[in-house]
Amino acid sequence: MRIKLIIAYDGTAYAGWQLQRTGLGVQEKIEGALEAIFQKPVRVHSSSRTDTGVHALGMVAHFDLEKGSSNVPLPKIALALNSQLPPDIRVLRAASCPEDFHARFDATGKEYRYFVWNDRIANPLLRHCSWHVPQALDLAAMREAAGAFLGEHDFEALAVTRNYRPSSTVRTVTLCDFRRSGALLTFRVEADGFLYRMCRGIVGTLVQVGQGKFSPLDIGKILSGKKRDAAGMTAPAQGLVLWRVFYGGRKRGRGGRQ
Amino acid sequence: MRIKLIIAYDGTAYAGWQLQRTGLGVQEKIEGALEAIFQKPVRVHSSSRTDTGVHALGMVAHFDLEKGSSNVPLPKIALALNSQLPPDIRVLRAASCPEDFHARFDATGKEYRYFVWNDRIANPLLRHCSWHVPQALDLAAMREAAGAFLGEHDFEALAVTRNYRPSSTVRTVTLCDFRRSGALLTFRVEADGFLYRMCRGIVGTLVQVGQGKFSPLDIGKILSGKKRDAAGMTAPAQGLVLWRVFYGGRKRGRGGRQ
Repeated sequence: MRIKLIIAYDGTAYAGWQLQRTGLGVQEKIEGALEAIFQKPVRVHSSSRTDTGVHALGMVAHFDLEKGSSNVPLPKIALALNSQLPPDIRVLRAASCPEDFHARFDATGKEYRYFVWNDRIANPLLRHCSWHVPQALDLAAMREAAGAFLGEHDFEALAVTRNYRPSSTVRTVTLCDFRRSGALLTFRVEADGFLYRMCRGIVGTLVQVGQGKFSPLDIGKILSGKKRDAAGMTAPAQGLVLWRVFYGGRKRGRGGRQ
Repeated sequence: MRIKLIIAYDGTAYAGWQLQRTGLGVQEKIEGALEAIFQKPVRVHSSSRTDTGVHALGMVAHFDLEKGSSNVPLPKIALALNSQLPPDIRVLRAASCPEDFHARFDATGKEYRYFVWNDRIANPLLRHCSWHVPQALDLAAMREAAGAFLGEHDFEALAVTRNYRPSSTVRTVTLCDFRRSGALLTFRVEADGFLYRMCRGIVGTLVQVGQGKFSPLDIGKILSGKKRDAAGMTAPAQGLVLWRVFYGGRKRGRGGRQ
């Protein structure tokens, strides 16, 4: 029986999702909780690998259970896991899924959100989940630049591809905008897939457009040039949240929760 | 010269605002930073004393500087203090104020906000600044009950007055409502003053109205009975934020920032 999990975590204390020699990967905590309740090692496969300090409110993962191997009824799995997990990791849902479902290979898109606290002084309550940008930002220029990322492009210039070779660096961005509420800017970036650090490259570049270091018209040149050092900075990890992962056919480009 | 400070802090790591023998009061951190930049002991007077774990985004305090005693120009004081303070405490503003201004005695009102995460599973990113209430809540009943707190009442039944004797337990509540955004409920309570744990008593009672333990019609009886054990629970500290403090004449009852 294959089980699909939706997982939320505060990434502050973790070296990312992935198993780490240090034991500080979120995956290790989930697998430890599964082993505690099922009394045997369980391997978990996730939709995504988040970096050190990056958060998730909608990470998806799956694992397999042999039939009859568990006394824990399905509706109690999330509760049982949460009783084993530290409070900075919560399983939001556990449900059975088709035997051939794969959290990573079946994902058809992802939405990230990125939080910027744009005020002279940082907000101490948001310091672990936002990037403090003290300078005034040209929001109109940023909106124009955000629109230039929409659609199918080669995103090599926005990502870090030094240590791995993706088979393609072309991705389709279906949503790229931000909302302002007081000093809080909430960026939403949705795509059929993300290269390593691509979302943070997009947000870092947009903020530097807001600071006047790039013009909105530069985005097209940055994309076509495919050089990482021509684009803006990588926004810091703590502002980034993996918001949700999409599976199956879906009309994208809208912000409503599925 | 008297200086007025506006201070924000994440109260998670502190035993409240007040000086503590343990050294874990926010006041002590502020006074330590002032001593570091002015090279002598400085006493700070605040508008409010917050409890262990309670946060502030608009705490007001004042202190005195002898003329000519400082090389730090006024516009640099906030920056200088922040360079001495831990990242969970930020001075948002420092400005000169009238010599007879008093952060506590001149306050004419305060607004607190209280955050409830109302979903089956807690949100790990909000665990230090919200109360996790997993049960479904009757929001309509809660709204009706919130309205019953408005106006001038004796709030003895909602506060904890065991260990101190306020000269009066009558307060005027000028705003008491909440907004819902997904699973997040944001309560706003504004009054000309708050008794000890009064805001948490109001929110705890409102949530228990939502759980069906009280009816909105009980609020009047709870207030007139003046018995703490007839009202609802004290909501936990970590959901509470001192949002702003009002001085001078002001039309209250509106939510906009001054």
